[in-house]
Order: sequence, then C-alpha cells, then structure tokens
Amino acid sequence: MARWEPGARERLIVAAVDLFAEQGYDATTVAQIAERAGVTKSTFFRHFPDKRELLVAGQEALRRLLAEGIAEAPAEASPLEAVAAGLERASSAMGPMNHDLGPRLKAAIAASTELQERDALKSVSLAAAMTEALVARGVPDATAALAGELGVLAFKRGYAEWSQAAATDALAPYALAALRELRAASAALG
Amino acid sequence: MARWEPGARERLIVAAVDLFAEQGYDATTVAQIAERAGVTKSTFFRHFPDKRELLVAGQEALRRLLAEGIAEAPAEASPLEAVAAGLERASSAMGPMNHDLGPRLKAAIAASTELQERDALKSVSLAAAMTEALVARGVPDATAALAGELGVLAFKRGYAEWSQAAATDALAPYALAALRELRAASAALG
Repeated sequence: MARWEPGARERLIVAAVDLFAEQGYDATTVAQIAERAGVTKSTFFRHFPDKRELLVAGQEALRRLLAEGIAEAPAEASPLEAVAAGLERASSAMGPMNHDLGPRLKAAIAASTELQERDALKSVSLAAAMTEALVARGVPDATAALAGELGVLAFKRGYAEWSQAAATDALAPYALAALRELRAASAALG
Repeated sequence: MARWEPGARERLIVAAVDLFAEQGYDATTVAQIAERAGVTKSTFFRHFPDKRELLVAGQEALRRLLAEGIAEAPAEASPLEAVAAGLERASSAMGPMNHDLGPRLKAAIAASTELQERDALKSVSLAAAMTEALVARGVPDATAALAGELGVLAFKRGYAEWSQAAATDALAPYALAALRELRAASAALG
C-alpha cells in the first residue's frame, strides 16, 4: 500500500539506498540501481551523472534551503531564531520519500565506510552553510560556528525522531523541538 | 634550523602531507612519500599499512586521549569541565611536528576532496568519542552531543590559533581558550 506515488528520481534514490545497505556502496552498479527502480540506465543518467552524485544532489539543495531560510529571517531574529528559520525552510522540502528513506539510509551508512565519510562530509558542509549564512547576517564568528553545529545536530536528531513517527507528520516540528532541546541542554553544560 | 629532530614516522607524515598539498592525495604514491622523507619503502610499511592509514593513525590516538581525559575527570566535573580535561589530555600529545603540520594539512585538505571527506569524518568521529565518554559519565544524551560538538570546535579553533603562534607554545591553553570563547558565545545564541 504505497502512501505516496514516487517518480523515477525518487524510485532511483530509494533503490540505490536499499542496494547500498544490502551489498555495500562499492559493489552496487548503476545498472542494478536502474533495474531495482524499474527504469532504464538512460533514465538514471537523465537524473544523475553517477551513483555518487545521487547522494550529493540532496545535500546541495539542503545547503541552499538552510542558507536561504537564515538569510531571509527577520533582521531582529537571534542567531538561533535564524537557524530555526533555516530548519523550517529545509524541512518543508522533506516529503514522504525522505521520511521512508531515514531508516534505510541509516542501514546503508552503517554498512559502508565510504557512505560514513560522505555522511560526515554532509554534516560538516551543512554546518558550514549555516555558519556562513549567520556570519553574513553579522553574527560573530564563534557564535555563528556554534549555532551552525547546533543546527546540524537539531536537523539530524529531528530527522531521526521523524523517521520513527507517522509518515503524515511534517519534519519541521521535530527539527524545531530538537533545536529547543539542545538549547535547553546548553544550560546544563556547566 | 630544525627546532625538533623528527624520526622516520614524523618525517613520513610531513612528507605525505606536503605531497598531498602539492599534487593531490590520489596522485601521491607510497614510493614518493618514502623518497621525500628520505627513507625506504619498507620503512614506510613498518610504520603504516598504506597512505590512507597514515592519516587515520593520528585520529585513533586522538579519540582515545579525548575519551580518557573525559573518563578520568573528577566525578563532580560538569560536562564542559570534563571536555576541557579531554582537550588537555589530547593536547599534551601534540608536539612540534603537529604545530608545523597545521598549515600544511590545511593546504592539503583544501586541494583534495578525498582529504576533505577524511577530515570531516575525523571531526564527526572525535565528536562521537567525546559524546560517548560523556554519556558513560551519566550526562544526558542531548547535553553530551552538544558538549562533544563544542569540544571538536574548540580543538579545531585552538589548533588553528596555535599553528599561527610560536612553536614553543603548548596547544592546551589555545584549545581551552577556544572552549571558553565558545561557551561565552553560547550565551549570545538567543
């Protein structure tokens, strides 16, 4: 019972992540991904130049959305309020496919050193995007770096919670709740 | 005028990082690294199984030192005081070679996507090591995750400052100053 009707691009991503989890990233070919998704190899290449870019594509969109949300937050917004605006903007782009992808991606990452590296680079890259967007708002360097890390932690923790919740839920409330929790936790740092 | 007398292991690391910066990680061979360091290939292989492990070796030691420092902090230490103890322990292992390596490593990382991924994985791995060590002390999950990220930021920012300073300085005061700065910055998050 499909709750959503994925297009070829979404089917390719889900098929790739499942194959990465089952047999590893290195062992998975474009031909296998296309076959699992029920499309031709040329359809794959209309969407992605290679299997690596299939993973990177989402990251670039996420960077852009986080930075845009922060840039367009009201001038009087605090650094964390701006980060919250970035998380809301990025969350709005996360639909049912992203919801269902969560546990699968986790399994794939656990099974592959290469995907662990990619995932680590993604975290660092998203933090840098938020930090830069905050610095552009005039937030001091150290505060911006810290807020960027908090933003990534909140996004990851919120996404993990959301993956366990009903598919009809939106991501944003989970990400924002995680950000509030981390903010509260910072009072207990000592 | 060498300020320190490096052994073969240190010379291999410096030679490798310089070659990575000059010609990229992928294009650099073990034979080239050994030649630049003035040792034989078999000397290389007595120290490292391959060029990749040459970069990973330091990371494992760092993880261990950070975790040990946190585990052995006094029971009454706050999460950030425990992180400070971890930073002190890890800093004590950083000598003149690490000081001189800073700018070279930065250049090598800027020149190679593969090294950017490795560096990102290193950050994530060090944060995880600190987070786990804090959770083992009974620190709640969110606070531990946040303190772990603060620890990595402090280590990286302190290391960067130290690289610009006199080689006779110790790293620890720079890392601890960066941690205090980040702690103060968290008050301005909003």
